[in-house]
Amino acid sequence: MALIVQKYGGTSVGSFDRIRNVAQRVKALVVDGNQVAVVVSAMGGVTDQLLAMAKQVSSNPPEREMDVLLSTGEQQSISLVTMALLELGVPTVSLTGSQAGLHTSGTHTRARIDNIDATITNKYLEEGKVVIVAGFQGVNEEGLIQTLGRGGSDLSAIAVAASVHADVCQILTDVDGVYTADPRVVKDARKLPEISYDELLELASVGTKVMQSRSVEFAKKYGVKFEVRSSLNNNPGTIVTEEHDSMESVVIRGVSIERSQARVTIIGIPDEPGMSARILGALAEAEINIDMIVSNIAHDGFARHSFTMHTNDLGRAQAALKPVLADLGPTAQIESEAGIGKLSVVGIGMRSHSGVAAQMFTALGAAGINIGMITTSEIKISVTVDEVQIEDAARVVHTAFNLDRPPA
Amino acid sequence: MALIVQKYGGTSVGSFDRIRNVAQRVKALVVDGNQVAVVVSAMGGVTDQLLAMAKQVSSNPPEREMDVLLSTGEQQSISLVTMALLELGVPTVSLTGSQAGLHTSGTHTRARIDNIDATITNKYLEEGKVVIVAGFQGVNEEGLIQTLGRGGSDLSAIAVAASVHADVCQILTDVDGVYTADPRVVKDARKLPEISYDELLELASVGTKVMQSRSVEFAKKYGVKFEVRSSLNNNPGTIVTEEHDSMESVVIRGVSIERSQARVTIIGIPDEPGMSARILGALAEAEINIDMIVSNIAHDGFARHSFTMHTNDLGRAQAALKPVLADLGPTAQIESEAGIGKLSVVGIGMRSHSGVAAQMFTALGAAGINIGMITTSEIKISVTVDEVQIEDAARVVHTAFNLDRPPA
Repeated sequence: MALIVQKYGGTSVGSFDRIRNVAQRVKALVVDGNQVAVVVSAMGGVTDQLLAMAKQVSSNPPEREMDVLLSTGEQQSISLVTMALLELGVPTVSLTGSQAGLHTSGTHTRARIDNIDATITNKYLEEGKVVIVAGFQGVNEEGLIQTLGRGGSDLSAIAVAASVHADVCQILTDVDGVYTADPRVVKDARKLPEISYDELLELASVGTKVMQSRSVEFAKKYGVKFEVRSSLNNNPGTIVTEEHDSMESVVIRGVSIERSQARVTIIGIPDEPGMSARILGALAEAEINIDMIVSNIAHDGFARHSFTMHTNDLGRAQAALKPVLADLGPTAQIESEAGIGKLSVVGIGMRSHSGVAAQMFTALGAAGINIGMITTSEIKISVTVDEVQIEDAARVVHTAFNLDRPPA
Repeated sequence: MALIVQKYGGTSVGSFDRIRNVAQRVKALVVDGNQVAVVVSAMGGVTDQLLAMAKQVSSNPPEREMDVLLSTGEQQSISLVTMALLELGVPTVSLTGSQAGLHTSGTHTRARIDNIDATITNKYLEEGKVVIVAGFQGVNEEGLIQTLGRGGSDLSAIAVAASVHADVCQILTDVDGVYTADPRVVKDARKLPEISYDELLELASVGTKVMQSRSVEFAKKYGVKFEVRSSLNNNPGTIVTEEHDSMESVVIRGVSIERSQARVTIIGIPDEPGMSARILGALAEAEINIDMIVSNIAHDGFARHSFTMHTNDLGRAQAALKPVLADLGPTAQIESEAGIGKLSVVGIGMRSHSGVAAQMFTALGAAGINIGMITTSEIKISVTVDEVQIEDAARVVHTAFNLDRPPA
């Protein structure tokens, strides 16, 4: 017998049929003798409907009241999932975020979880009941309802799992797990049996869409091991956990790509203090998210800065930089290029293995793929390539690091 | 400056336009310098939608979870009304029943209000904010959401008014107030400026649909004076209050009618103890609501019982009485009649005025209207007449008691 926390997202409870399906899945766990707590999101589409309602009466819906409104979505789904389980004869109770003791603070619509008082959840679990908890919501010190923002239900599930000391926390979603690469791009991509928090965080930061980083960070902070798996079948998914020694034997855990990147380079910048701040400040003021940053001094003694961003931001970036360029002096010029892709490899094995970058660049070079910018972190290497070559690049690197074969 | 509690029902907040209209009305009170708390129902139709959702996943929706589901309707409307007021620049906050300290007990889906802790409501009012409270819902000792059943939002409003010691409690609805008779039946019916709790309770019990009796009883218990008025105009409505001396100068406050009544009479009942219990017990077991009961001993020494019920129940009543009749012995026979109307007059003035019944019967007799059964209470007289004459009967009695003219 295990204490299992599951989380079902909006798609998984997006229709009455799917709600009945979730109830069947939960019942199967109970029949097997497990204690189960389930965190659910609002039914798919409901949150958008509620947002549309708010727009009908408010040009700029106030956040405190948005939380009151949005939290009804999860409140409806917990009652419906509970009813579906009771219909199957499984003793079940629903709990709102507030009732489940999920205490939050910070800004409405994007609050953070401070702590969970699991007294009531534990009481019901000990009574042999399944507990259905509303995700995405909690209550602050003043007793006000707060929602957690994007990925909030995952966060709720991790927090509930931590608070009840669950044996297993399963994030049930519409993907099967975490793959060595996007299977739509790399045909022989493999589902990973496990991955460390840090690797998943790095992969998420470079385009792999599995979970919001904040939920992974929260799990890491509280040491909650969780599994990402499909709500549509019973296949094992990917365990996300603390790194351990045997993980380091694999050099690269996965490959991730981002498309539609653009590069801006400013050349001929006088090599004086404050120039970078001037440039990046103008971009920040224009609320342009820049990604990779590469700076160096060219042979002519002037500095050059290159940075990448999403292609959609390129026009605004050029506009924002125009006045800055004049300030930098007559030598400064701006160059830009769209149609860039970014390829990243991630793995904690990089810490103990040398030559990873060389191996990657060699493989790309042998395939005739030119590398533009390069950035690295302790467990990640990212390069830009021509966007038309990004899928080839992913496949070449995937094979070069033997990701198509299970580790020995 | 006054402290005003208003209640708007589902129709009054039934569309985004109406929500904006409510916001304008509340703003006008604030501009006039009043403190305002507003109790709102779910948007019209929403409760039915939620019920339909529950039916999709449950053949017999459990009441605890129905409360979790249904309470989202009011939670949505408080947030939307609050947003609409903020949009008009009026500082406003929403409170769920739980946040407003509305403590309940008893059965889910029809809980009772035990008490209200108005601390938070008072705090916001003192800060100069309008407070929008979710009607129909509260929280029990265990922290579970409970709903109050039919008329629950009126009850919430009366309770909030009591707890904050409001100067005025206005129940805004789709009728203008309480009338001396149904204006669709009696053309010269007048809107009453005031009525006592007991009179409204008696009128409600005999067919006048203004408010659920439990809300009036609650108001009476806690001495909350309230006004029933229209949400569509600014006309004064009817004040419902403790009775006071000048009220007794009016003999009859109002006239009410009920249609589609049926009568069952059992004759030839042996005059022995337990016979009535036998008959009424059989009807109670069949869940038939009986209304008027008249019993007496006929000249032949046998007892006879007559009772009225809704016509829809007549068939079931006859079926339920069939086995009883056999038990009562060979003399017992059953007679029944449908197509009956019931006319009632109500007024606390009856206590101090004699001859009211005679005056009523004389007027009906002069109009050629035959009277069937008669029952009386301290402040009410009810008679049955042929249903085709019920409207005439109402007009005749209305005129006989000068209800078409304002009291001197």
